[in-house]
Amino acid sequence: MNPPSGLAENFRAIDVIRKKRDGAELSGNEIESLVNAYTRGDIPDYQVSAWLMAVVLRGMTRTETAALTDAMLRSGEVLDLSSLPAKKVDKHSTGGVGDKTSLVLAPLAAAAGVAVPMISGRGLGHTGGTLDKLEAIPGFNVNLPVSAFRRVLESCGCAMIGQTAEIAPADRKLYALRDVTGTVESPYLICASIMSKKLAEGIDALVLDVKTGSGAFMKSEKDAAFLAELMVETGERMGKQVVALITDMDQPLGNMIGNALEVVEVVDVLRGKGPEDLRQLCIELAGWMLHLGGVTESVSAGKKQSERLITSGEALVKFRKMVELQGGDPRTIDDPKKLPQARSTMTIATSRNGYVASVQCKQIGTACVILGGGRERKEDSVDPSVGIVLHKKVGDAVAEGEALATIHYNAEARATRARQLIEESYQIADAPAREKRPLIHRVIGKPGEKN
Amino acid sequence: MNPPSGLAENFRAIDVIRKKRDGAELSGNEIESLVNAYTRGDIPDYQVSAWLMAVVLRGMTRTETAALTDAMLRSGEVLDLSSLPAKKVDKHSTGGVGDKTSLVLAPLAAAAGVAVPMISGRGLGHTGGTLDKLEAIPGFNVNLPVSAFRRVLESCGCAMIGQTAEIAPADRKLYALRDVTGTVESPYLICASIMSKKLAEGIDALVLDVKTGSGAFMKSEKDAAFLAELMVETGERMGKQVVALITDMDQPLGNMIGNALEVVEVVDVLRGKGPEDLRQLCIELAGWMLHLGGVTESVSAGKKQSERLITSGEALVKFRKMVELQGGDPRTIDDPKKLPQARSTMTIATSRNGYVASVQCKQIGTACVILGGGRERKEDSVDPSVGIVLHKKVGDAVAEGEALATIHYNAEARATRARQLIEESYQIADAPAREKRPLIHRVIGKPGEKN
Repeated sequence: MNPPSGLAENFRAIDVIRKKRDGAELSGNEIESLVNAYTRGDIPDYQVSAWLMAVVLRGMTRTETAALTDAMLRSGEVLDLSSLPAKKVDKHSTGGVGDKTSLVLAPLAAAAGVAVPMISGRGLGHTGGTLDKLEAIPGFNVNLPVSAFRRVLESCGCAMIGQTAEIAPADRKLYALRDVTGTVESPYLICASIMSKKLAEGIDALVLDVKTGSGAFMKSEKDAAFLAELMVETGERMGKQVVALITDMDQPLGNMIGNALEVVEVVDVLRGKGPEDLRQLCIELAGWMLHLGGVTESVSAGKKQSERLITSGEALVKFRKMVELQGGDPRTIDDPKKLPQARSTMTIATSRNGYVASVQCKQIGTACVILGGGRERKEDSVDPSVGIVLHKKVGDAVAEGEALATIHYNAEARATRARQLIEESYQIADAPAREKRPLIHRVIGKPGEKN
Repeated sequence: MNPPSGLAENFRAIDVIRKKRDGAELSGNEIESLVNAYTRGDIPDYQVSAWLMAVVLRGMTRTETAALTDAMLRSGEVLDLSSLPAKKVDKHSTGGVGDKTSLVLAPLAAAAGVAVPMISGRGLGHTGGTLDKLEAIPGFNVNLPVSAFRRVLESCGCAMIGQTAEIAPADRKLYALRDVTGTVESPYLICASIMSKKLAEGIDALVLDVKTGSGAFMKSEKDAAFLAELMVETGERMGKQVVALITDMDQPLGNMIGNALEVVEVVDVLRGKGPEDLRQLCIELAGWMLHLGGVTESVSAGKKQSERLITSGEALVKFRKMVELQGGDPRTIDDPKKLPQARSTMTIATSRNGYVASVQCKQIGTACVILGGGRERKEDSVDPSVGIVLHKKVGDAVAEGEALATIHYNAEARATRARQLIEESYQIADAPAREKRPLIHRVIGKPGEKN
């Protein structure tokens, strides 16, 4: 752990607030002093929230963004994984509905010989969280101390836990303040928050999955690309290999939404089955992880090897091993019926012939929260068994009376409310859309030699 | 007192912060809910400081500014002076160095039959405050309860006190937060702060003296005019007659700076003497107060009557009476030597022939603070006896060895530091400046029929 350096001799928070308010560039020293003083409790929330709002409205330069990331990263422990011979590569997604790629990618990349030390978050609002999905596996412990995390990583090449108190405490404190002061929506602050946590994992390279579309935090491709470029440049300034894929989140990813259901779909993909969009995105991201992890000479070779590791069953073996090492019941991998199951199901059918024009992510995600599968507030508990299975996605033909989706539920009243949202989320048109949205919009940053 | 209305049913501070952050116009209801909730302690400082920064950077519409002023005004007691038959008129200055016009204007307008219920502030930084000047008069009590304030006002037509806990408590709380979060510098927030306090005095009309120049809060005439227009429109929206004079603060006003010294100069003006700039500004502002107070049909008639009331000694009699009613020693009015006197004086002479090109306000004001005559921090106490007398002002010819200023001091070391600042503040040129800055730059708002 790098001890935070002391306050600059003449540091006054008010000066830093005014300077940013007036649109000037802050020095690395000023940013570091502010972050350290706040983390230590030496300056009050009300000064930092004014500064955060000034950052939201005035922006930051690339140098300031890197300095903020660095200060937040060094506010806590930075894992030293240099004793592991393998390259350490992680993946981070800006989040969406049905995005369970992390659960596929960690064991898949580990099977190829890349070390994946993955620290993830929980779901909030209409988007799900990796930790909640893992906890749908009975016994799975996401709250490992760093020593145990390291042992799992050494033993099977991947480990997945939640943020610890030691990792980037400045981010934890700043994020809680941003959440209640309308200062979440800033690419500079989002970049520093994501990158400080990811770089604290002691990784060599990072693959970013920046979502765009109606279900994404960044609705427009332009905003997604801006954030992606910011994160890639920040990572590079800190000596890491970083690539960002702008990927589609205009409809849910895969067919299953809900924690236990998503584990089922993860196992499907690891068995070489599962829905095409999810499978394709996993292969694409894994291709980059293998390439950056030094396992293959190109991304395309990384993709081919990822497909082989799925076909051979090696990736699934890794997943099973990680589940076991983290206290989860490995029989759930072999028999999905051992995962938590909702008591009832309800099918939603369409009343007309046509083609699915859109499936709105927000309504689907919110329907899952209403069923009990997500959180409206941080302190809410989550029911792992409930969720939604989509039978039709954008472009699919539908006939009157055909099933669009199935709700898995434990409370009738909640299912009724969720049903309405799901019906609203589907738009059926007479003809199929002329153009299909691509799954991968763009790739930003080209670390490594060949693609 | 208007009881604050309750929180709007669905009011959430975060929504109001986000709306302002995104540049949208807030409703009167939203602004009122925010101000009331904050005053009651129902929402935390850190949310309000984020909102304040959003206001600083996004601005406010005229409707929002009036709604904010109204909410702050109604956060506390609004004086009901309707039992007084005279029209109630006050004057407010945005502050500067050597600005002692309030002490001349209150008794002068009262002598003409206008009621002047004046609630003032203390000095902070390089600018002085009316309350500190009044307290230089031994025994003068500026902390009267509202009932006593009303009795003095009824008895002599003017009364001068400090802000009470009952008047605009929202402003007190908001100002304290703005002071430490870099959110003082917003014309909208400045307007709401000034106007809410002034309108709580139960006045019919208000004369604003908005300073411009190097010693003013608003350095440029453009910024001063913007603030002036905002305050005039806000007052008019609330049914008051308001005029704003943009006046010069590029050099100190009058010749004396320091609390007791300024009282001496006030008495000089009320005796028909004193420096020309101070005298002229007082007559101009008094002309407007008399006109808006319904005493004269025009401003020019108001100015003439003000001059007569000085010549006749009636204005001085009023001042003497107010001092007496508020517990001050009236003999100090007849014999200035009875005011606090510094132990020593030191003369600053020029080393060259020429003409005074400028006298920087900030250095002169800071020199007075260093002598002990002002405050660097709110909790500092003030020495009423110290100060500076300027013998030369902009445009005056000076000969080598001639005195520029005299320092009145009680501590040698402080005088030495002040001397350096005063020397720095004087710029001497070979020739007089071609153009003289006007004392009155512009008049904004034309309440009443004739000027």
